[in-house]
Amino acid sequence: MYVRSSTATVVVVAALVGPCLAVESARAQDPLPSWNDGPSRKALTDFVAKVTTEGSREFVKPAERIAVFDNDGTLWCEQPAYVQALFVVDRIRELAKDHPEWKVTEPYKSVLTGDMQAIAASGEKGIVELVAATHAGITTAEFEALVKDWLKTARHPKFNRPYTECIYQPMRELLTFLRAKGFKTFIVSGGGVEFMRPWADETYGIPPEQVVGSSIVAKFEMRGGQPVLVKKPKIEFIDDGPGKPVGINRFIGRRPILAFGNSDGDLQMLQYTTIGPGPRLGLIVHHTDAEREFAYDRQSHFGRLDKALDEAPQRGWIVVDMKTEWKRVFPENVQKEQ
Amino acid sequence: MYVRSSTATVVVVAALVGPCLAVESARAQDPLPSWNDGPSRKALTDFVAKVTTEGSREFVKPAERIAVFDNDGTLWCEQPAYVQALFVVDRIRELAKDHPEWKVTEPYKSVLTGDMQAIAASGEKGIVELVAATHAGITTAEFEALVKDWLKTARHPKFNRPYTECIYQPMRELLTFLRAKGFKTFIVSGGGVEFMRPWADETYGIPPEQVVGSSIVAKFEMRGGQPVLVKKPKIEFIDDGPGKPVGINRFIGRRPILAFGNSDGDLQMLQYTTIGPGPRLGLIVHHTDAEREFAYDRQSHFGRLDKALDEAPQRGWIVVDMKTEWKRVFPENVQKEQ
Repeated sequence: MYVRSSTATVVVVAALVGPCLAVESARAQDPLPSWNDGPSRKALTDFVAKVTTEGSREFVKPAERIAVFDNDGTLWCEQPAYVQALFVVDRIRELAKDHPEWKVTEPYKSVLTGDMQAIAASGEKGIVELVAATHAGITTAEFEALVKDWLKTARHPKFNRPYTECIYQPMRELLTFLRAKGFKTFIVSGGGVEFMRPWADETYGIPPEQVVGSSIVAKFEMRGGQPVLVKKPKIEFIDDGPGKPVGINRFIGRRPILAFGNSDGDLQMLQYTTIGPGPRLGLIVHHTDAEREFAYDRQSHFGRLDKALDEAPQRGWIVVDMKTEWKRVFPENVQKEQ
Repeated sequence: MYVRSSTATVVVVAALVGPCLAVESARAQDPLPSWNDGPSRKALTDFVAKVTTEGSREFVKPAERIAVFDNDGTLWCEQPAYVQALFVVDRIRELAKDHPEWKVTEPYKSVLTGDMQAIAASGEKGIVELVAATHAGITTAEFEALVKDWLKTARHPKFNRPYTECIYQPMRELLTFLRAKGFKTFIVSGGGVEFMRPWADETYGIPPEQVVGSSIVAKFEMRGGQPVLVKKPKIEFIDDGPGKPVGINRFIGRRPILAFGNSDGDLQMLQYTTIGPGPRLGLIVHHTDAEREFAYDRQSHFGRLDKALDEAPQRGWIVVDMKTEWKRVFPENVQKEQ
């Protein structure tokens, strides 16, 4: 009786649970559920299969499976402006309370009136001045706290959600998939390294030591018996364009086998990663979806994609058509504030 | 019959194999066989137990278990001179064939005649010139090949073995032990990052992306259709003294919980790592063994240990007495050439 009863229970439970498990299992079997069946998905999965199959002629040992990702426009949204630029604007507004002279002094005046064209016209000198005013004169720990606090309340103007939720779900799945296949994933971005590190681990699963970016000079000091690093108003390194291979060499110290970008700022990183012997893959996010995100390429102020788009066919770089290849753009089921 | 025979065989085999397994097992149980029972060994194992015991008040999650190690004098021998300095001398001698003018030009002349005092007197200008002549004007890949080739034939003048075998066996065991306990181990050295990366993985189990060091400028170029990085005769970053916390912040992006050094060049790294809340450990190799290695501290030209030694007691840094605390200094059973 006991045995029979037990068996019957198992059968009933199995009948109820079975279908759920089957669905779960199907999901579990597809590590890239937000990627439609298309050329990009195929290129990615074929490449990963090729380099991870032991005994294959193109097998790459795990330590050499270095994958690098641009951030702005590749992992998260960079329109209507780079998130870090929006952070600078908010910070200038905040600090303006103590700087009445900024109302009549460029480039601050243009920031306060929201004149983006005038800011752009102020050139590198203007940008350096804004970075100095907003990023320097404080310790690295203080800056980290500022970034975290700002991200808690800032909202994307079009999507009305935190910027850390304006990240691309297909890319997040790809990062997880690659790591499960023994890859080490790095961010290599023109953005400030200390602007990205405070949230990259939680958001992308990429720890601080795997984030490469632009930086300003920092200096070691003892303050009140405590060791601190004070950020100085001096650009140290621009991790963009030809700076990206330099940053990769400096921070990672070996050549990646996979690079993913979306703009001409990624051109040299794509070249450095893909030109040479052995299996290599370069990919470009093409922003073709004005409805779900933004549509832009050759004429955009932020994330211009022109030369790299021209060079893609001859290099064999995969151009990912966001509109047709991504089932969804942003993560679903995230907390969305009013 | 079959069963009995089988059992008998098992008993016999167990009797034969048992003692061997017992010895193996005892070895396996001690992850630090080259460390004598002493205060340093105890401080290390106590610290690791404390931060890795879940539920303990001082538990540190694996991602935060960052341990940083100086290289010269901490992981390998730095006497009678830094290994990289000896590389520079050999390289100048090699290149002198094409530079007859070096016989009468400083600082080359002093290098060729082996006048170390005159080289030191040439100051930073002289050092920069030597680095430029020996490290620049070539690609990063070419430099890596030079370093690997040199290490194959160069021998330590006192120990007559390759420099990569003049590494400290107790430290190698410690690196392995820490990694087994979930630590991520980094080198943070004043030495050139591109001088260390070619052999650090094989020698210490530390991959290129976990090596932080000094560097000269590199520039991205396409040469004959191939992407390369060309090393330029310009110092980019000195990862020594107050530069070490800067390098840690730049490359690792979080504060370590354990730092191991041996000289005043590690003073700020030890301060940065150990002063602050939470469990933290600082250690210093004290070179006290003139017989098995070298004995030096406050007066040494290379690896001077003076201020950090004075500061150790008040900071609680553990000073490792090489002579009494290390059972052996270098690895045994390594291939030793004539």
